Amino acid sequence: MPLTLYGDPISGNCLKVRWVAERLGLAYDWIDVNVVKGEAKAAALLSLNPAGQVPIVVLEDGRALAQSNAIMLHLAEGSDLIAQDAYQRARMYEWMFWEQYTHEPAIAVRRFHKHYLGKSEDEIDPALMVKGRAALARMELGLAGETPWLAGDALSLADVALVAYTRVAHEGGFDLADYPAVEAWVRRVEAALRIA
Amino acid sequence: MPLTLYGDPISGNCLKVRWVAERLGLAYDWIDVNVVKGEAKAAALLSLNPAGQVPIVVLEDGRALAQSNAIMLHLAEGSDLIAQDAYQRARMYEWMFWEQYTHEPAIAVRRFHKHYLGKSEDEIDPALMVKGRAALARMELGLAGETPWLAGDALSLADVALVAYTRVAHEGGFDLADYPAVEAWVRRVEAALRIA
Repeated sequence: MPLTLYGDPISGNCLKVRWVAERLGLAYDWIDVNVVKGEAKAAALLSLNPAGQVPIVVLEDGRALAQSNAIMLHLAEGSDLIAQDAYQRARMYEWMFWEQYTHEPAIAVRRFHKHYLGKSEDEIDPALMVKGRAALARMELGLAGETPWLAGDALSLADVALVAYTRVAHEGGFDLADYPAVEAWVRRVEAALRIA
Repeated sequence: MPLTLYGDPISGNCLKVRWVAERLGLAYDWIDVNVVKGEAKAAALLSLNPAGQVPIVVLEDGRALAQSNAIMLHLAEGSDLIAQDAYQRARMYEWMFWEQYTHEPAIAVRRFHKHYLGKSEDEIDPALMVKGRAALARMELGLAGETPWLAGDALSLADVALVAYTRVAHEGGFDLADYPAVEAWVRRVEAALRIA
């Protein structure tokens, strides 16, 4: 039995999981869940993830798992998307937790309000732009280092986690031209994942 | 050279890292950083963590690492705080990412506004109570399972991550008496970590 991935294709959190499955050559069925219509909170999905969110994966043995970054860590275990070196792996974790705590709640949320809910600039909490720009500036600094990837010397789950919403940040009103190292890195990760 | 932990003792995110170091019997120096006074954004600490947040650990070899849950995963690698079983470990990751995305931004933030900034109930975003109660309800459901711990059959980093702010949720105006399984679990985790 292949994996079953439940996700909304407008959600970077869902796409990241799909990209990892593709990259690893895993067999999976994809089931569309429309988040805007509230389908993630339908009873059948709540039984898989009481938090009422997608992505959800149902594994080969029928057990479910939620949280995009947790699913990626599970699927990619033992692969080259997770560094063998303990410190590089720890830095990958650092970026992944930072992504969910700091980056996603600003950049993905502003995109959702602007691009999917169609709010005008006036209707969007001004703090989201400030926080999103600070997050992009922090990535710009992180990409000024010695390697072309966020954590360690190869593409890792940190890059996958962070590219998901960074590559569509313009839909949230952010201009990546202000962050040239980030913009170049987005193209690099897209090429590596073949999602350009 | 021992570990150096930079943290604010009022921050659950900082305390979790300290509890793991204690539990594992690691030698460490603790350096107080006053978050309310903005000390985490001082130049010396920004050079260790450009995100301007604590906790930060400086490892034995002088390299720095940030993000509480990433630090815990690094310090506890190979210990009994991380399950050997891949699915139990993945569920631990799921709870840890959920903690940072959903639990902390409601429960820790409301506590900070109420208890440390001294805001009145009227001055606090009403969404924080709604979101915090939903998070506690989700934990109550998660603790109705077959084991007394959040992920798998033993204490894990999921319990450490989530107990940090759950045990002081009353300081944010939440009443754990409404969540009896959560309340019993808090006592259990406190006893296991000897922080009661």
